[in-house]
Amino acid sequence: MMAERLDGKALAKSIRARLAERIEREGLRPGLLLIRVGEDPASVVYVGGKEKASKQVGIASRVEVMPESTSESALLARIAEANEDPSVHGILVQLPVPKQIDPDRIAEAIAPHKDVDGLHPINQGFLTLGAPRLVSCTPLGVLALLHRYEVPLSGRHVVVLGRSQIVGRPLSVLLGLKAPWADATVTVCHSRSKGWESLTREADVVIAAMGRPEAVTGQHIRPGAAVVDVGIHRIPRDHGKDALVGDVHAESVEPVAGFLSPVPGGVGPLTIALLLTNTVYSALASAGKAGTSGPVEFALEMADVTSR
Amino acid sequence: MMAERLDGKALAKSIRARLAERIEREGLRPGLLLIRVGEDPASVVYVGGKEKASKQVGIASRVEVMPESTSESALLARIAEANEDPSVHGILVQLPVPKQIDPDRIAEAIAPHKDVDGLHPINQGFLTLGAPRLVSCTPLGVLALLHRYEVPLSGRHVVVLGRSQIVGRPLSVLLGLKAPWADATVTVCHSRSKGWESLTREADVVIAAMGRPEAVTGQHIRPGAAVVDVGIHRIPRDHGKDALVGDVHAESVEPVAGFLSPVPGGVGPLTIALLLTNTVYSALASAGKAGTSGPVEFALEMADVTSR
Repeated sequence: MMAERLDGKALAKSIRARLAERIEREGLRPGLLLIRVGEDPASVVYVGGKEKASKQVGIASRVEVMPESTSESALLARIAEANEDPSVHGILVQLPVPKQIDPDRIAEAIAPHKDVDGLHPINQGFLTLGAPRLVSCTPLGVLALLHRYEVPLSGRHVVVLGRSQIVGRPLSVLLGLKAPWADATVTVCHSRSKGWESLTREADVVIAAMGRPEAVTGQHIRPGAAVVDVGIHRIPRDHGKDALVGDVHAESVEPVAGFLSPVPGGVGPLTIALLLTNTVYSALASAGKAGTSGPVEFALEMADVTSR
Repeated sequence: MMAERLDGKALAKSIRARLAERIEREGLRPGLLLIRVGEDPASVVYVGGKEKASKQVGIASRVEVMPESTSESALLARIAEANEDPSVHGILVQLPVPKQIDPDRIAEAIAPHKDVDGLHPINQGFLTLGAPRLVSCTPLGVLALLHRYEVPLSGRHVVVLGRSQIVGRPLSVLLGLKAPWADATVTVCHSRSKGWESLTREADVVIAAMGRPEAVTGQHIRPGAAVVDVGIHRIPRDHGKDALVGDVHAESVEPVAGFLSPVPGGVGPLTIALLLTNTVYSALASAGKAGTSGPVEFALEMADVTSR
């Protein structure tokens, strides 16, 4: 038996289709402002991908490129303007920013209800307090993926490897919330953790987000467990070719796990898809059409998993 | 061998002495505004205890009692005034508040730098992001107590039982932060957790904060582990007398654990002592005398554990 593939690419596609339908039906015109400061090659690719995916579903996205030498105050002024602009429902400043700019000040400057990346401290706080508003896209993507494949979470033991601000920590809080779509028992391990292997070996779900290539192997996983791989690394292989790998050593984990997300094609495509659900939610809320559901419930609805 | 007693009462006393000395030395006049709405008997006792302890160390505390019928807007107006008052460094509204008042709106109305109870979502967010500012008093008290008795945390497995907004959740985040005084591997269990006993049985530290009298017994604890009891319950005993007990069944845990905090005299007194450190920190910061340390480091300094 080989692990069932948690196909993030297919889920992202179906989320985009549902978003397009919803935007059309509601006659929405969601606006997403993507700000890139400088010409970091990876950022050029990421922002391009976000723009393209937004346009596909009918979001009016706009990329603004500011020069590498942009001052913090100039960027803050641009954000303040976008905060007031009723045609903009989501604001994202691509990270990393040049060193003269403090990313924490940028995160705090974005109006919380337009913070589609979920990085404002007050949004992290609402999450921690158990009443999440906009949540970071990768944690939301992992949640949607697990639900799409009906991996049970309530009462189950989830081990999150990694405690980063944008993945490990918010994901661990999200999965442990008192909510019908969460309610997991969650352990967070990190570089200082002693004996994390004995914890993953007993876990029902393992989320690998430590940023170390192929660090999780078949020996670390309980037979039948679900494994979600958040890492992505380009590493050299034989014959001078590069390969894309995750934090999971797929070859040894596949014969052991019950479910495994591939790299590429797992969590990656979902990060962008959930940025879109956040943006559309924000537009719905500003039009008074969000009803009683929050952005997490909306994301699960777009992933077509609310009835499960 | 019986467990060593984690004496919170003694630690609270030594924290108060250090605070008094610091206030005197710096010539500070920290101001704490304690607001009580209505005459809930437990609240009368709690607020009285906070006022008394503040005065002992030289904090100018003031209790304001507003009538049970106070409107939310009247309370918000009073908070707005205190936010602007330079003689007030800490503002605490005793919970619960009467039902016409939304406690979440109250928490969000207090200026974050005067939020000595650590309940403002933005303070919870700074904690989750790994850069804590003011943190809730009970989690801080548990951290100080573990350090005072040199219970190792870095890399060790801590199981927190309970996910409340004011104890379990913020404590689990705090103990798992990337910081020399934290760095633990943390698991949060709750009422939905299946098999939590198998997790506590392997834990180095167990924090009982689930709010169930004597739910944690000796069978749930690994020999030598540290056990911190955050619960407090008044239960009827034989012969019509009442007893105070915690979430831990002390009689069976004492012969197994390496450390145990008593009830009463464990975490309880620390909650007030750490409210005082938060208030004094806030006064120091407003006088530009806090240096580079944050409120958590200041609390540990007052608990005399920074050199360990």
